[in-house]
Amino acid sequence: MKNLIYILIFLMTSVGFSQDYKQDSTQIKHFYNTSLLNGKSYEWLTHLTKNIGGRLSGSANAQKAVEWGQKELEKLGLNKVWLQPVMVPHWERGEKEEAFIIAKKGRISVAICALGGSVATKKGGVTAQVIEVQSVKEVEALGEKVRGKIVFYNRPMQADLIKTGHAYGGAVGQRYNGARVAGKYGAVGAIVRSMNLRLDDYPHTGVMSYGDTPDAQKIPTAAISTLAANKLSEQLKLNPDTRFYFKQHCETLPDAPSFNVIGELTGSTFPDEYIVVGGHLDSWDLAEGAQDDGAGIVQSMEVLRLFKTEGYRPKRSIRVVLFMNEENGSMGGKEYAKVALERKENHIVALESDAGGFTPRGFGFTSNDANYAQILTWKPLFEPYLIHVFARGGGGADIGPLKNDNNVLFGLQPDSQRYFDYHHTAIDNLEAVSKRELELGAATMASMLYLFDKYGIK
Amino acid sequence: MKNLIYILIFLMTSVGFSQDYKQDSTQIKHFYNTSLLNGKSYEWLTHLTKNIGGRLSGSANAQKAVEWGQKELEKLGLNKVWLQPVMVPHWERGEKEEAFIIAKKGRISVAICALGGSVATKKGGVTAQVIEVQSVKEVEALGEKVRGKIVFYNRPMQADLIKTGHAYGGAVGQRYNGARVAGKYGAVGAIVRSMNLRLDDYPHTGVMSYGDTPDAQKIPTAAISTLAANKLSEQLKLNPDTRFYFKQHCETLPDAPSFNVIGELTGSTFPDEYIVVGGHLDSWDLAEGAQDDGAGIVQSMEVLRLFKTEGYRPKRSIRVVLFMNEENGSMGGKEYAKVALERKENHIVALESDAGGFTPRGFGFTSNDANYAQILTWKPLFEPYLIHVFARGGGGADIGPLKNDNNVLFGLQPDSQRYFDYHHTAIDNLEAVSKRELELGAATMASMLYLFDKYGIK
Repeated sequence: MKNLIYILIFLMTSVGFSQDYKQDSTQIKHFYNTSLLNGKSYEWLTHLTKNIGGRLSGSANAQKAVEWGQKELEKLGLNKVWLQPVMVPHWERGEKEEAFIIAKKGRISVAICALGGSVATKKGGVTAQVIEVQSVKEVEALGEKVRGKIVFYNRPMQADLIKTGHAYGGAVGQRYNGARVAGKYGAVGAIVRSMNLRLDDYPHTGVMSYGDTPDAQKIPTAAISTLAANKLSEQLKLNPDTRFYFKQHCETLPDAPSFNVIGELTGSTFPDEYIVVGGHLDSWDLAEGAQDDGAGIVQSMEVLRLFKTEGYRPKRSIRVVLFMNEENGSMGGKEYAKVALERKENHIVALESDAGGFTPRGFGFTSNDANYAQILTWKPLFEPYLIHVFARGGGGADIGPLKNDNNVLFGLQPDSQRYFDYHHTAIDNLEAVSKRELELGAATMASMLYLFDKYGIK
Repeated sequence: MKNLIYILIFLMTSVGFSQDYKQDSTQIKHFYNTSLLNGKSYEWLTHLTKNIGGRLSGSANAQKAVEWGQKELEKLGLNKVWLQPVMVPHWERGEKEEAFIIAKKGRISVAICALGGSVATKKGGVTAQVIEVQSVKEVEALGEKVRGKIVFYNRPMQADLIKTGHAYGGAVGQRYNGARVAGKYGAVGAIVRSMNLRLDDYPHTGVMSYGDTPDAQKIPTAAISTLAANKLSEQLKLNPDTRFYFKQHCETLPDAPSFNVIGELTGSTFPDEYIVVGGHLDSWDLAEGAQDDGAGIVQSMEVLRLFKTEGYRPKRSIRVVLFMNEENGSMGGKEYAKVALERKENHIVALESDAGGFTPRGFGFTSNDANYAQILTWKPLFEPYLIHVFARGGGGADIGPLKNDNNVLFGLQPDSQRYFDYHHTAIDNLEAVSKRELELGAATMASMLYLFDKYGIK
């Protein structure tokens, strides 16, 4: 039975598609070779991280990143480069936060950072008894018992899940909804264990939401490092009356004007069919935004550069989009889709890279059965590059609004094991990114988009 | 045709093997869960790197590592733990090396390190003109033209090869044979570009050989960092008469007594069939030997610990071997195989982990067709853990001597992209290893050995 399968696979790959297979395989090899030997992604990332740095929506650095992106795309000799205006939330952290556990033996300083969107504490900070919980649901059950207290959400990410994104998905509800729910029952603050699978002292920021909570009832919320979370939990076991102090200065300013940065290689045969590749240009403010998502930005730019360098003239129009504001609002992604709809642009394919610049393992596809079947016929082309994951489901926050019944949205899936070591922390810097791994990702993206451009969708 | 394949695969995996498949899949899940949630590999690695450190054969640290390995294996409740004596080469680096380029504008200090096995320079160091070459073959062609000069081997590793081990294989001949061949034609020293795909300032040591060169004709040899190699090459382009100076103090002492450390879980049904899992306990001296090969050591120990923890009593005898002296002689591997042969022990399977503690991608197998066919039937069991590579060819330096016509030798293949960032350098420290990635590797090894233990070989 086994041999029969081999024979069938052999027939499929070497007879049925032999002409195209050979051409595609050669083209893909060129993309990888050029990316690894003469790639530009790492040089771009070095500039974006070291010369610009963290670039939260609405900040001066975000504006610098927009100008840099436009300038670099203009150098590539694309058919069009433009800025698409979009209004974005504007939240600022302000002065560094401080926090300590008030233990019997004295104060224990701990590492925290305000969550994105949180209000400040009152001037003198917040001091209160702590109630440790595992979930938002538990707070709903406790109800009024949390009144006057600081709620401490301490459910760890689940380490035995192989894809760390699944572990994130299972824990991040505490961060997003924790303050809203605790505030509803009169808590005075919410402290959330960092979304981190390691034990270390870097707190992880990230977006939270108050929903429709009136301003006066919004309570301040911060992430605490995993090591500090364990320390706080230990102290609470020793003494359930342990109090906690924290102070933060963040504020939400009026929405600010910003831009998506867009470049286009116009298609030779089907210029009205659009293929998008992108990542997000904004980042959190604690570090340089290297893995999240400088990597996706420079990989997306590299896709178009590889097409140009290799002299590949696309049949369809390929757009690179440097989306603004994925981290706290996704206004850039929404605006891009809104304009595309208004202009009746037919977006057949969109690829997002927003899971880090680690060794690429494959893709996750949101598509109908016919398109997925076509995609699977391309799998052998990626075998030499150790790209094995062709999963169903996936895409990304920025391209999500482009979904329709026929098109294909998909996300690059790099190795996920170390992503949450860096994600939204002070160590998401250039040094966290391997040049080779980044370049392999860019080549993998270019190769898949080349196939979509050549064969279209079903 | 496609559907037919799916049906066949479905039949193979869900009907033919259904009973065993379910049991195996459950057992494998337990190995992964335990390794990720309650693993011991990282704790062991922390001790081996931070409390012992670099452990070159013949050193006091290598002896400490032997004693530690024996003690830890004894704690696991195995059936036997013992030390197997073996004589090993004993080379010492001595004082730190120094080197500079003598450029027109003055001295440019550069980072070098003596290659393992090299002789020292004479007391005042070596100063000479430099001749840059790309290969040993080029030196053979130059012949007497290298007399009195320092030969500078500067062929980079080939960055467009996807598996970095292939790039290493294509470049390491310069390091191993460079001094021998240059010395034959009267060169006074050999400087070799580090085996590194990055540009940085860490020189990479590694073993070299003089073959049967008489002592008096042995010339000193060192690795130079990739950044410094580029600098030297630039200077030579500016001025072909540029001279180079280097000084090193290394020496080869008489062979020293040492040990392989061995632990055994004796088989319940086929105690005379042996399955080996191992890595090498020795390391280079510049750092802590974390990726190379502390990772392989603790993963191998973890395999037996997982068997014990999971209450899995093997049918065959499973041995963990902490091999001594892989780096500069492989005397431990040779001795183990020699004794096995003398005792007529039937070694049916051996697995080596010596490619770093990165995210596991699969294995490379050296086996006959029948065994490889059996191995492929196990592939679907590894899909949930993103283990996709089941390549032919592979094993390792330490288990190689165990090869016979029937047995299966194989090596763990972790992601290789960052391995040569650390390999044989001053930064191969605990911080280079991700706890999760290490643990995933250990679970992957345990799972495959469980299958070999359960089903035997063909």
